[in-house]
Amino acid sequence: MGWQADRGGTALRRVSFERRDLRADDIAVCVDYCGVCHTDLHSIHAYRDNGGAPLVPGHEFTGVVTDIGRDVTRFAVGDAVAVGNIVDSCGACAMCLKGQENFCHEFPTLTYGGTDRHDGTTTLGAYSREYVVRDGFAHPLPAGLDPAAAAPLLCAGVTVWEPLRALGVGPGSRVAVVGLGGLGHLAVKFAVALGADTTVISRSADKAEDARRFGAADLVVSTDQERMAAVKERFDVVIDTIAVPHDLAPYLKLVALDGTLSQVGYLGPVTVEGLDLLIGRKKLSSAGSGGRPETAAMLEFCAEHGVTADIELVPSARVNEALDRLGRNDVRYRFVLDMADLV
Amino acid sequence: MGWQADRGGTALRRVSFERRDLRADDIAVCVDYCGVCHTDLHSIHAYRDNGGAPLVPGHEFTGVVTDIGRDVTRFAVGDAVAVGNIVDSCGACAMCLKGQENFCHEFPTLTYGGTDRHDGTTTLGAYSREYVVRDGFAHPLPAGLDPAAAAPLLCAGVTVWEPLRALGVGPGSRVAVVGLGGLGHLAVKFAVALGADTTVISRSADKAEDARRFGAADLVVSTDQERMAAVKERFDVVIDTIAVPHDLAPYLKLVALDGTLSQVGYLGPVTVEGLDLLIGRKKLSSAGSGGRPETAAMLEFCAEHGVTADIELVPSARVNEALDRLGRNDVRYRFVLDMADLV
Repeated sequence: MGWQADRGGTALRRVSFERRDLRADDIAVCVDYCGVCHTDLHSIHAYRDNGGAPLVPGHEFTGVVTDIGRDVTRFAVGDAVAVGNIVDSCGACAMCLKGQENFCHEFPTLTYGGTDRHDGTTTLGAYSREYVVRDGFAHPLPAGLDPAAAAPLLCAGVTVWEPLRALGVGPGSRVAVVGLGGLGHLAVKFAVALGADTTVISRSADKAEDARRFGAADLVVSTDQERMAAVKERFDVVIDTIAVPHDLAPYLKLVALDGTLSQVGYLGPVTVEGLDLLIGRKKLSSAGSGGRPETAAMLEFCAEHGVTADIELVPSARVNEALDRLGRNDVRYRFVLDMADLV
Repeated sequence: MGWQADRGGTALRRVSFERRDLRADDIAVCVDYCGVCHTDLHSIHAYRDNGGAPLVPGHEFTGVVTDIGRDVTRFAVGDAVAVGNIVDSCGACAMCLKGQENFCHEFPTLTYGGTDRHDGTTTLGAYSREYVVRDGFAHPLPAGLDPAAAAPLLCAGVTVWEPLRALGVGPGSRVAVVGLGGLGHLAVKFAVALGADTTVISRSADKAEDARRFGAADLVVSTDQERMAAVKERFDVVIDTIAVPHDLAPYLKLVALDGTLSQVGYLGPVTVEGLDLLIGRKKLSSAGSGGRPETAAMLEFCAEHGVTADIELVPSARVNEALDRLGRNDVRYRFVLDMADLV
């Protein structure tokens, strides 16, 4: 049972489907909560325009183990688990061996719209009451984390966690987060919990109070030239979460000598002026999703520091309304679907 | 006396001009050797097309002090000195205070085509027998460095030195240098002397012997798909010295997890696919010129490790031939003008 894209339009409709029988290393999960990611919207639009295999979105979810394959020792029935946007990888390439299964040379199996490595079927996502996943790609959900508010950690969270860690953010770091949405608000919470002096750059001042509640020292409105000039070259790390094509120049200006702008919200072609990188010896990077070790490390960190997403929890039957509002950036800060209505 | 661009074409002609009277913190230098940089070609072409103030190129030179201003204590008449592409800066901004005068917020005074901060005149470069420079922007030329072969260190050298240092290249690092020209051959020598395992990526195998002579472990021909695939994700740092617009994707593929491609040869707009950065969490950076502390550190390092440029030394009267050949990349590996014929 789940929510599947409809060929005729953008609305999802409720459908019945079966999950595969458990393989020896599979677990079956009763999905309780699934976050609504921007990628889901892109996928739905692409399906509407191009068709393809049936599409059930959803790749950041939490739930409870209901059954285990015969070789599974990591989990038992009743365990709380969390799954992100990859559910398998080759396990043998240099990236997998480094624990960066998200960069698997053979391409990781995506949680939905991916191709199962064993039977060749297209994976169906977690806008659904059940999911079957290889045990190695499920994570124990640490006690103390609210399972609904934790769901978005598994995609939005790890996407901003990995660059913050890879760029060595910690006490004394100065971090700016551009855009305070699903990715941005988690980037702020992580940067603050890692000890960084954190500033939000936003199109409007509307979210200043939220920014401070998340621990940011300040919110700078990106159209305020004077304030933007005042924070020029101030940040070791700028995490740019804007989801649409945009001019990077105003945000590169904020990067300090030898600092980095990491673009995590938009993944199409990016054009920068060479001189905007040269002056200050700045770096442009990107990041997306996460490997298993860092995902596990993030979950432990979240449990220790009490970090989860700020969510709007809605019954899964309201998925189309949630997607519409997400398309208008009308959410503070992540929709999570409650799957209990799928019976 | 020097070589000035001619309004009618690209040839330089010999002209007489006077340098300013020494200010209290100036030194006068008898220019012995001046390297021929790609920037000189760009400037000559721009002058031909757009006119402007008289253009005398030349911004990497060595010579001997012939006179000193009344407050100068760092230098005495007869000292060997070296000067690069900046001759002054504001001295007060955050970049200057960090020793990155090349990124001065008030813009550094360029060695030629710059605007003098005191009298507003346009600076004339070192394709000339004399130069007058603020003492703080001249460097003592360490004993043991050949002054002709050392001249290119002051621009080409420090341009590749700074990113190698900023990116922490040392023993155990794996470095690729794309393009074996003026910048590239110095990048190889530096990377090798810093202890890195160094590979050259070149359009042809012609320079394989030179690459090994400079200490590179290998030369990979960029059109050899099989060999390029074999070095995929192998390098922590890729220094791209190609001087014209080009597709970065084949070189980004060579960058290892969390590694950096530093583009130092071409400074116009750069377009990259977001996914080419995302997969492997790679970084794109740039660099150019150098600050005073790193320039001094580089010169000391060169003296210690016996690093200078491989040059073709020609009398300054052959400057137009040198520029023509540089325009065709026909030089191994840097032209240096011998100014002794300017009397």
